[in-house]
Amino acid sequence: MQAMVMIDKLVVCGVGLIGGSFALALRRAGLVRRIVGLGRSPASLARAVALGVIDKAAAGWADALDGADFVLLATPVGQMDAVMAAMAPHLAPRTVVTDAGSTKRDVIEAIYRHLPDHLPYVVPAHPIAGAECSGVEASFAGLYDGRKVVVTPLPENEPEAVLRVREAWEACGALMHEMPPQEHDRVFAAVSHLPHLLAFGLVHDLAGRSNAEQLFGYAASGFRDFTRIAGSHPEMWRDICIANRQALLGELDQYLAELAQLRALLLSGDGDRLEQLFGEARRARNAWAEQFSTAANAVPTPE
Amino acid sequence: MQAMVMIDKLVVCGVGLIGGSFALALRRAGLVRRIVGLGRSPASLARAVALGVIDKAAAGWADALDGADFVLLATPVGQMDAVMAAMAPHLAPRTVVTDAGSTKRDVIEAIYRHLPDHLPYVVPAHPIAGAECSGVEASFAGLYDGRKVVVTPLPENEPEAVLRVREAWEACGALMHEMPPQEHDRVFAAVSHLPHLLAFGLVHDLAGRSNAEQLFGYAASGFRDFTRIAGSHPEMWRDICIANRQALLGELDQYLAELAQLRALLLSGDGDRLEQLFGEARRARNAWAEQFSTAANAVPTPE
Repeated sequence: MQAMVMIDKLVVCGVGLIGGSFALALRRAGLVRRIVGLGRSPASLARAVALGVIDKAAAGWADALDGADFVLLATPVGQMDAVMAAMAPHLAPRTVVTDAGSTKRDVIEAIYRHLPDHLPYVVPAHPIAGAECSGVEASFAGLYDGRKVVVTPLPENEPEAVLRVREAWEACGALMHEMPPQEHDRVFAAVSHLPHLLAFGLVHDLAGRSNAEQLFGYAASGFRDFTRIAGSHPEMWRDICIANRQALLGELDQYLAELAQLRALLLSGDGDRLEQLFGEARRARNAWAEQFSTAANAVPTPE
Repeated sequence: MQAMVMIDKLVVCGVGLIGGSFALALRRAGLVRRIVGLGRSPASLARAVALGVIDKAAAGWADALDGADFVLLATPVGQMDAVMAAMAPHLAPRTVVTDAGSTKRDVIEAIYRHLPDHLPYVVPAHPIAGAECSGVEASFAGLYDGRKVVVTPLPENEPEAVLRVREAWEACGALMHEMPPQEHDRVFAAVSHLPHLLAFGLVHDLAGRSNAEQLFGYAASGFRDFTRIAGSHPEMWRDICIANRQALLGELDQYLAELAQLRALLLSGDGDRLEQLFGEARRARNAWAEQFSTAANAVPTPE
């Protein structure tokens, strides 16, 4: 592998778990000279400086993009539109821009809307890394070790720009994959967005009961694991659900059909078919879990 | 606390994770002289002997109950009926019998049906301990350390018998709770049986897709935790779902109403209310998880 080109000035917009860990991982790799941060919360940026995640908070986009050669947009996807609109006037033609949004079609729409003159150098991507903990305090250099990053390049992308984005993530320890954005959004609606919705829904359902305290008092480790993703960041997940609601509604409806089937089996007391269905699920889940736990990406999730 | 009465001969029917761990925990406590096992699989009983979990496999109920002073029924709840029918003719009047069934109303119905002359000494109970791994190979003495055990005594129970059951579980390291059986079954339908059904359903749904391999290929740690309980024992969960289907259907219907609400919010693109709902869920989940993880019962779940 060719040595990666050094990043002279990295701009991270949204210095939370995802953006902060990207900065720390590139520092660990020794591949970045200066890192400036942008974000909504001055207090959070000050903590990012204090923690050594970024060198300084930029005064604004003009300041941030002055001399920048690489930009990571790591805000909740609902902010991408405003962020791109704000950065557009100050963006140099050959500054590489990428994002870490969990949805891709909406981010790409925002790119075409706000950065039409920069399409060769704006490369959409999505790191698959858990985000139950949020904020710069939770960031760490090893977050992306062995994790997948999906790049969904634009037809207009310069190969050189795609390569720089891939190399930056690889330097963070990630394994690179490529996929069309529509496919990306359908896949993650199924294996990520829907489970989050279901977990939020169950906890919300139980928390609203008059005997909620009793219920939670008897919940055990199975419940803990099942609902772990309900501890995720509400704004981030609001944005994901809204941005990807078309695919998510499709997944939800398929799942509702599955639940209707389970409901019918319960109603008729059909133990044989329930056991068969549970057995099929168990085999599929255990086969997957075995592969997953032996894969490099089985980094333990913090509680 | 008074010293617990020694168990001279313990009978474990169903020597899997639950029954085997009970045997090992009582051995650890030095409170049992002999342990005999019964079960459907001679091979599994032979392994239980080889592993030192039980001293020997009984030839049948007559042999097992001869001189027995304590019996734990740790089979899937669907077998309780047949098990009690088989043991009834051989059961001495003052042998203490308890069970480890995850549902209580059906087990109690079986007790009244098959052991009407033994009601003073048959004490229903339910240890709240994870069972993603099953089989005697997974059993260990520390399974119940700090875990809750819910006793649902019969009105006919002798206080002495209830006390012996409580003491045996306490000797295993468990924390004792008491609850009416109907309440027990409603609580666990909500916090245990429904989540299992939902997790089995999601994995079954995805595993049946034409692109299942791709979907599982991008599933990450959030999916792993959400579906961990879909690795549970199909027969055990068939029995639980059938035995407790009345309460479970009630919980499923409440959850379907929650999903209908979420679906409407997605359809209308109501990000504000989605975020509010996610935020409420997150707060409730994190408050619970904090208590849970500081409680003694936060024993790590094996993958």
